[in-house]
Amino acid sequence: MDKGGEGGKFSANKAMKTISSVKELKENIKSWKKEGLTIGLVPTMGFLHEGHKSLIDRAVKENDRVVVSVFVNPIQFGPKEDLSTYPRDIERDKKLCSDAGANILFNPEASEMYFKDASTFVDVEELTEGLCGSKRPGHFRGVCTVVSKLFNIVTPDKAYFGQKDAQQLAVIKRMVRDLNFDLEVVGCEIIREEDGLAKSSRNTYLSKEERKAALILSKSLNKARNVLSEGERNTKSIKRVIEEVLNSEPLAKIDYVEVVDSITLKPVEKVEKEILIAIAVFIGKTRLIDNIIF
Amino acid sequence: MDKGGEGGKFSANKAMKTISSVKELKENIKSWKKEGLTIGLVPTMGFLHEGHKSLIDRAVKENDRVVVSVFVNPIQFGPKEDLSTYPRDIERDKKLCSDAGANILFNPEASEMYFKDASTFVDVEELTEGLCGSKRPGHFRGVCTVVSKLFNIVTPDKAYFGQKDAQQLAVIKRMVRDLNFDLEVVGCEIIREEDGLAKSSRNTYLSKEERKAALILSKSLNKARNVLSEGERNTKSIKRVIEEVLNSEPLAKIDYVEVVDSITLKPVEKVEKEILIAIAVFIGKTRLIDNIIF
Repeated sequence: MDKGGEGGKFSANKAMKTISSVKELKENIKSWKKEGLTIGLVPTMGFLHEGHKSLIDRAVKENDRVVVSVFVNPIQFGPKEDLSTYPRDIERDKKLCSDAGANILFNPEASEMYFKDASTFVDVEELTEGLCGSKRPGHFRGVCTVVSKLFNIVTPDKAYFGQKDAQQLAVIKRMVRDLNFDLEVVGCEIIREEDGLAKSSRNTYLSKEERKAALILSKSLNKARNVLSEGERNTKSIKRVIEEVLNSEPLAKIDYVEVVDSITLKPVEKVEKEILIAIAVFIGKTRLIDNIIF
Repeated sequence: MDKGGEGGKFSANKAMKTISSVKELKENIKSWKKEGLTIGLVPTMGFLHEGHKSLIDRAVKENDRVVVSVFVNPIQFGPKEDLSTYPRDIERDKKLCSDAGANILFNPEASEMYFKDASTFVDVEELTEGLCGSKRPGHFRGVCTVVSKLFNIVTPDKAYFGQKDAQQLAVIKRMVRDLNFDLEVVGCEIIREEDGLAKSSRNTYLSKEERKAALILSKSLNKARNVLSEGERNTKSIKRVIEEVLNSEPLAKIDYVEVVDSITLKPVEKVEKEILIAIAVFIGKTRLIDNIIF
């Protein structure tokens, strides 16, 4: 009898396993390693969308085996953040991963990932001081710690992260360099809705009205790109342009607008090297982020 | 022509390589892994003595290949500590490692281990609050960071640490558990001089008179063991006994005397589970540590 996908439907990738135990995952990894197979890792918090799918697609293309982790990592949420309401749909995630050709979906409980007396943390300093780091204290410590754990468990050849979380991508690259993790961090470009809104699991929080208002993020960045194309190099002026666009939307409240060096994430005054323009904006109660590299 | 050891003398282990580049070390590790060989790692700061030798001997017994790292890790020294004067003798270290049967001595420069803008650190909290952690702020952060790097570079099956640095051993064990490093931490018992002084690279700092005075550390711990054997279970009384012995030596100045749980390193009032009695004592300007497990 054809068992089909775990989600109960027939799927293109009958062999995908859903695993919740670290031990079982490691056993699978070890047998792959013995065969000399390369491994791609796509770490996610689930509620997967087209953005995640693009990471998985690329991982499937570039590796013999692919592990997608779905883990809403409690230690990267602040006490006032949306841990308990973060959207989840593991059955849909399974189907998406299976259809995309992933080999293992790793979906552990928090208790499987953290002992009660867990006390080890990985910090990337400097790069985490600005942008989301300053607005979400402890967030990147949580991210770096769980990603270090996933790296040690999965020992991937390549790990895939979206460019939408630009600071996260830069921080993980730095961590991999500094701690000598033996893998390549692959950054993948932002996937957008047809109207320009960057795909995000948190978009699901938006009411119909807020969904429309949220367009203001990509609009403001497009305006910045235009101004840059026309030759503007003063970052204060560029920030002002973005802020003006954002402030034109009554439902939007700016969390930050920053123009920084794309590697060091340090604020720049004149655009000379590659820059990252990163913004975080509340649309109602939902905090959205977006960015462009120029 | 027989090349002999790197130290210039004929040795039992002609094949030992001394490597200073991370890249070259990783190439060696990868070729070993391809052959399916097991790897033991002995991380040291060099100026090797019988204590280190016992770790290397055990690693040679238990693994197909052994890497000894000799690296005086700058980031685990405080600004007022002995980084610049820490004793070094790489030629003697090479001979000792080679004779003991190590396959690679890894001896990198600080610039090979740390980029100028290195900004990633590994912290073990709680376990590092007391004992040496409270006396040497940043010390264990430096240790955990460099050991994480070595683990990622060498990917050992087993890593060997001396029980003399009892807190370090407990912290590394915790870090390995919490971050899912796929290796076994092996703690090896304290090696002592004939008269009882725990072997330490820092013993070389001691004048003749101080060398004699330093015996007071092991003496005080022996007294504690006697008192425990006689049934004493109150840790305050045990500490008092140790302090009395230490204070009887004019050249000794107590840094700390602690009785803690051997796993959590939390102070205990009554001896019920396995305890660690750890002491740090200045003999003149030299800070020495010693401990017993009961």
